[in-house]
Amino acid sequence: MDRLTEKFLNSKQVFDGKLLKVFSDEVELPNGNKSSREIIRHPGAVAIVPILNDGRIVMVRQYRYPIADTLLEIPAGKLDAGETPKECAVRELSEETGYVAHTLKKLTAIVTTPGFTDEVIHIYLATDLEMTEQHTDEDEFINMELYSKEELRVMIDNGMLSDAKTLVGLLLAGV
Amino acid sequence: MDRLTEKFLNSKQVFDGKLLKVFSDEVELPNGNKSSREIIRHPGAVAIVPILNDGRIVMVRQYRYPIADTLLEIPAGKLDAGETPKECAVRELSEETGYVAHTLKKLTAIVTTPGFTDEVIHIYLATDLEMTEQHTDEDEFINMELYSKEELRVMIDNGMLSDAKTLVGLLLAGV
Repeated sequence: MDRLTEKFLNSKQVFDGKLLKVFSDEVELPNGNKSSREIIRHPGAVAIVPILNDGRIVMVRQYRYPIADTLLEIPAGKLDAGETPKECAVRELSEETGYVAHTLKKLTAIVTTPGFTDEVIHIYLATDLEMTEQHTDEDEFINMELYSKEELRVMIDNGMLSDAKTLVGLLLAGV
Repeated sequence: MDRLTEKFLNSKQVFDGKLLKVFSDEVELPNGNKSSREIIRHPGAVAIVPILNDGRIVMVRQYRYPIADTLLEIPAGKLDAGETPKECAVRELSEETGYVAHTLKKLTAIVTTPGFTDEVIHIYLATDLEMTEQHTDEDEFINMELYSKEELRVMIDNGMLSDAKTLVGLLLAGV
């Protein structure tokens, strides 16, 4: 598929934030023209669809500053340096909900918005859950909520769930 | 859900790109602590699941610079200033594939990665398609490919489709 590929020419970091690393790169297009590409480098993340033995799914609600609203999502979090996606899934699920997953199955991996970031989210199905206790960071505010698959399906059909990783995870888990 | 809300304190634009507008905001957390939020302001976008009368779905393959690979996606594009999502869906589908949609049905709207951007993608199902001709910009390189629902389902189950909007659109369209 070579006639689609863009050739790297040079890269300049234009912002070095706590979370976001923003670069402006110059590329050569398949027709020989030059163009610029603005991209966000991201460490990657995981998301987890945790299903209890009674079939209910563990969801989290939190405030999402960029959209100025709370959002109902599946548990998720960013990869720490040196951490595998599976280790991260176990850690984030435990931190955000208190549940320890004894069985994890990879559902898929998504690119969230490949036009401007390399962010990948690895999505897992978590079962055989054991309740311990939620232990979020001091500055992290998360409500845990339980829903049946039927309730979540109604919410999806009514446009009440809008988070991309959440929709992909739930739909692949059979909701 | 007031105990989750973060209070805006101030905002500083740290990058003003051709596409990306990056801001670093200071907020007050529910516990009174202060924190910073780095966010990308995005104009919003649309994506379209175009289904031909014979049931095949019109997909596009293009190079995505941030992930340094080509990606098979549903047709999509950014909102122009003053354009409604529905107008944008008709325009982008026509530009990228040559198909004019005579029937558009809203499937849902997704937030792609609400931890750091306000990007919303409105997703439509397009039917009653009429072939005209593809008319991408000079510097836009897109291959059109047709797949049956069954072929796409196999690709989803094998992790061969990773674009978030594409997965949400196809799964909600019954793939």
